Amino acid sequence: MTLLGAGNARVKEARKLSRRSVRSERRLFLADGPKAVEGALGVPDCVVEVYATPDAAARYADLLAGTEPVLVDDRALASLSDATTPAGIVAVCHHLDRPLSQVLAPDGRDDSRLVAICADVRDPGNAGTVVRTADAAGAGGVVLAGDSVDAHNPKTVRASVGSVFHVPFALERDPGAAVRAAQRAGLTVLAADGGGEVDLFEADELLAGPTAWLFGNEAWGLPADLAGLADHRVRIPIHGLAESLNLATAAALCLYASARARR
Amino acid sequence: MTLLGAGNARVKEARKLSRRSVRSERRLFLADGPKAVEGALGVPDCVVEVYATPDAAARYADLLAGTEPVLVDDRALASLSDATTPAGIVAVCHHLDRPLSQVLAPDGRDDSRLVAICADVRDPGNAGTVVRTADAAGAGGVVLAGDSVDAHNPKTVRASVGSVFHVPFALERDPGAAVRAAQRAGLTVLAADGGGEVDLFEADELLAGPTAWLFGNEAWGLPADLAGLADHRVRIPIHGLAESLNLATAAALCLYASARARR
Repeated sequence: MTLLGAGNARVKEARKLSRRSVRSERRLFLADGPKAVEGALGVPDCVVEVYATPDAAARYADLLAGTEPVLVDDRALASLSDATTPAGIVAVCHHLDRPLSQVLAPDGRDDSRLVAICADVRDPGNAGTVVRTADAAGAGGVVLAGDSVDAHNPKTVRASVGSVFHVPFALERDPGAAVRAAQRAGLTVLAADGGGEVDLFEADELLAGPTAWLFGNEAWGLPADLAGLADHRVRIPIHGLAESLNLATAAALCLYASARARR
Repeated sequence: MTLLGAGNARVKEARKLSRRSVRSERRLFLADGPKAVEGALGVPDCVVEVYATPDAAARYADLLAGTEPVLVDDRALASLSDATTPAGIVAVCHHLDRPLSQVLAPDGRDDSRLVAICADVRDPGNAGTVVRTADAAGAGGVVLAGDSVDAHNPKTVRASVGSVFHVPFALERDPGAAVRAAQRAGLTVLAADGGGEVDLFEADELLAGPTAWLFGNEAWGLPADLAGLADHRVRIPIHGLAESLNLATAAALCLYASARARR
């Protein structure tokens, strides 16, 4: 059995995908570990090739059925993974982002559409957690808008625990453009905003319609001009002495409030 | 003006509080940065002494009114802080944990009591985020039970964004004992459990009474025997393909569902 090493040309090419600029140019990224590889294999035509150590190829034989993994040694595999303890399989995948219009109006204009728009989320882990939470709450799409983190960053993919492969997402440089596109697509845009005029838990009627939630940056929230573009600004009531909630927590409460209102 | 340096005996003694064993023995800990120092100064008899650089003492003069900070040089201050960019003030504080009975039945047996019990939370950031979220949801107390993280760890204090100073908390080695004590105190114990028999969003009547939520470890959840001790096991509905939610997100959804049911 021949194993490719870390110096092999093919492995070296794949390793370049750890750089954002190379990912963007080639529209490829690395899905690291069984959870991510499983997610990627579930998306038609997503996986280009899978690298595995012989141990991992045996351990994940069921998962890899029908694929022919490129067998590599431990050092080569580690060079493709950013995990502290690599699980032994990494897939090279096509980028997953879709056109904005497709994410905002996936199946025509049905009334149960629920989308999350994140403006300027910076932390890759937060972006992944919001995608995971949106998935759990039944949202049909996520828009990473503005100066957001790279959705194909390994930390984002990992924090999403597979959900980047399940939830359609779009990238849009201009958050205002994303808001206006959502409104044109028939979605009511609700900005999550600590000073909002609507109380999240007294808004079931509003929440029951087709909705795009708009969330701001983890440190400074939503700029006033962006929040002003939304149809309504909604506050999560804070009962104790805490001043705010973190981004992923706020997103979970808003998205689940929508899910509940649709029952 | 004389500034104490990193080699000064008093500074060296304070610095030892970065070790858990020393914190436990002396029942003291370090509150790092203006947010934490402000929280600590709001708790009667909590602060033993405050260390500050001259710059920070001037910048936070309002906050420090009535205290006499020990002035130290930048290196000494940095040696007391675990922040990448120390803010310039650190307080030595008495431990904050209270007896379990006080946290479970703070003001006698009123009907609006809401408490979170965390069993075996391991990550300091998660523990702090749960305390912050419990504060925001209006919970009257948190119990860190079992092999939980040290609540006086600087990472926990930071992640709580001041809430460890606002929300009474107790430590209890045995999670089962915490559950039984909550039941004896008249609280209905609800275990957050993906396979639970009760749907979180169809349980308002149950949630309106005095409640202790029981949350498990971030990786493996609640052991079946512990979940079995609870009065009910409650699941958060998962709508998409996500398999679960992270601990802080799940805690936020459960605690806020209780807050909503009490309106």
